[in-house]
Amino acid sequence: MTFDSVFFDNASTTKIMPEIAEELVCFNNDYYFNPSALYYHLHRMSEQNKPTLENMRQSILKCLGGDNGKLIFTGSATEASNLAIFGSVKKNTRKILVSMGEHPSVYNSALELKNRGFDVEFVNLDKTGKVDIDDFEKKMTEDVDFVSIMHVSNETGAINDIARLVSIVKDVNPKAIFHCDGVQAFGKINVNVDDLGVDMYTISAHKIYGSKGVGALYVKNKVSLKPIIFGGGQESGLRSGTENLIGIYTLYRASQIVTKNLDENYNKILNLKNLFLQKLAKTNLKYALHSFEDNSPYIVSASFEKCRAETLLNMLGDYDNIYVGNGSACSSKKMGNRVLESMGVSKSDIEGNLRISFGLYNTPEEVEYLVQKLSERVNMYLTNAR
Amino acid sequence: MTFDSVFFDNASTTKIMPEIAEELVCFNNDYYFNPSALYYHLHRMSEQNKPTLENMRQSILKCLGGDNGKLIFTGSATEASNLAIFGSVKKNTRKILVSMGEHPSVYNSALELKNRGFDVEFVNLDKTGKVDIDDFEKKMTEDVDFVSIMHVSNETGAINDIARLVSIVKDVNPKAIFHCDGVQAFGKINVNVDDLGVDMYTISAHKIYGSKGVGALYVKNKVSLKPIIFGGGQESGLRSGTENLIGIYTLYRASQIVTKNLDENYNKILNLKNLFLQKLAKTNLKYALHSFEDNSPYIVSASFEKCRAETLLNMLGDYDNIYVGNGSACSSKKMGNRVLESMGVSKSDIEGNLRISFGLYNTPEEVEYLVQKLSERVNMYLTNAR
Repeated sequence: MTFDSVFFDNASTTKIMPEIAEELVCFNNDYYFNPSALYYHLHRMSEQNKPTLENMRQSILKCLGGDNGKLIFTGSATEASNLAIFGSVKKNTRKILVSMGEHPSVYNSALELKNRGFDVEFVNLDKTGKVDIDDFEKKMTEDVDFVSIMHVSNETGAINDIARLVSIVKDVNPKAIFHCDGVQAFGKINVNVDDLGVDMYTISAHKIYGSKGVGALYVKNKVSLKPIIFGGGQESGLRSGTENLIGIYTLYRASQIVTKNLDENYNKILNLKNLFLQKLAKTNLKYALHSFEDNSPYIVSASFEKCRAETLLNMLGDYDNIYVGNGSACSSKKMGNRVLESMGVSKSDIEGNLRISFGLYNTPEEVEYLVQKLSERVNMYLTNAR
Repeated sequence: MTFDSVFFDNASTTKIMPEIAEELVCFNNDYYFNPSALYYHLHRMSEQNKPTLENMRQSILKCLGGDNGKLIFTGSATEASNLAIFGSVKKNTRKILVSMGEHPSVYNSALELKNRGFDVEFVNLDKTGKVDIDDFEKKMTEDVDFVSIMHVSNETGAINDIARLVSIVKDVNPKAIFHCDGVQAFGKINVNVDDLGVDMYTISAHKIYGSKGVGALYVKNKVSLKPIIFGGGQESGLRSGTENLIGIYTLYRASQIVTKNLDENYNKILNLKNLFLQKLAKTNLKYALHSFEDNSPYIVSASFEKCRAETLLNMLGDYDNIYVGNGSACSSKKMGNRVLESMGVSKSDIEGNLRISFGLYNTPEEVEYLVQKLSERVNMYLTNAR
């Protein structure tokens, strides 16, 4: 059995659902008007359930359980998290709390704030990749005004108990703002921003079969935010620039579909993960797992003993048309792996770490092929390295 | 003769060329990999002339004449200009010079800098809508470190002599940085950033039949810039966030096509403009033109005596399916019109101002229909207003 292309890096990106991509031709013809134009509401726009900017926004908000807030469309999830952070932090912000497990869009923004002289504290992860609750409680002092903790780790799939963390924060400082990066959660596990209690929540289109170049920030009512991009005043003045209508359409459609099929998809992916782990256990490979049973099944982080992940990744791509990740592809220049380090993973295990992330278009046959080839390539690597 | 929909607001946005929209389905299937992934170059990517991120970037740079620089993809032209401005201005920047004619993405960014305590000077426009050269020379003092002047006015189509302005700037302060917003110029009039001598140049996809949500900033070699969005370090560290590949594809394809057909398109649009003006002159309407013969033919700014433009715009949309602009749609809340005011246009003329902007899909028949209906609606307005 061979495959033209087997994609196991779905946490990095996904293709637009082919059925949505096909709808874009019609959408482009019928709905290309500039949403800021005075006549925007006139043309094929007034009817209910038509994909106007506002109808799409409300539909996505509904998928998020965000009745008590608004949604700001941005050019990426990275920009959405930047807006949450730089748009909230003011001159008189006393202390900022983020975790060592955050995606670079949050972590590097926090570093930038530190460089600008702000007091930024980093919370450690526990061995399972979650935020260490003891460390969090210790560092969540009354002077912390802003907190950003991700929902699901993009490296390991570890799920943070956001509702509990929010409750800890609000108990200590009710006025503190809680932002959550939900990029690897929305559309994959159950998300209801109201139940979570967050003030802001970041989502991405291209992780759930929408287009790259589209993110959105949920902002709870009464949360005060200032823009980071200035211009025509679109998106309630919070994000200037003509909205990416066609991209937003893919987010809107994909949100509807993945929300509707959430449980079915979850079970499908869980079966793929379990199959992968079962088959892997039957090989002669020596490996360590950094993803655990209560993680999101969409991501498995595994380290192969005495292997360099980058070489394995290239062998699988070159020889077998199998594409896997080695940690976040959002880091163009990787130096070690901050997230795994914070979990206490050894340097050699970090070197041999691959991220396998499952998607809706993967099949059990592909998973078996992956394990078979992974086994061959690791053994080939070890033989030649000796 | 009736029309389903007649779109004369092409300066506000355009639809994606239908032939490009149709290509997106295939592009999505073949090229959806994350450009930051280590394996990105492996999969169908290594061949020349394939639409990889870097090949597309180089192709667009070539269309711009930008051999001596790089191109940074952003989520909108607004973001590109924000990057140029906020990425260049440093604590020790002494003075910033922009014109009163700038698009809100530049003008409001300049106001933000003024609010932050920077010394910002605004250059007046002359009666034709160009930057007033005398005022520019007066205000371009040795302590000006950053200049931003647009190439073609989005309100009137007035074309600034950028090469001359750059030469004035560099004569006075060779180290000053010159940014130019070329959104209404690129793909419509001849643009060669090398010949213009600019340090940075902003372009947009959705003004030239590409997708909304895609802008780009040309940055000359050796120009130092810092990011405004932080994260994974994409785009040479200057704009984090996964690139909008499908949107960039539309910019790449549209750039190729409009650059190849530049003269042919220009003449086609010039004929539409001339037809519009000829037909308009034959009506009984009283109007003033704020667009002149040496302007870009893509935009005509006209004021109808004793009319409120917003009402006219809505009548044309409601009754005739004709969509025209009233100044920049990028301003969601318009208060007067800063650009026309700066040209010395009277308040009553500003009230009656419409922007008619032509595009490649407009026909002479549509232009005749526009003038006929414009005449009917203005007369209806004046009759009922009496």
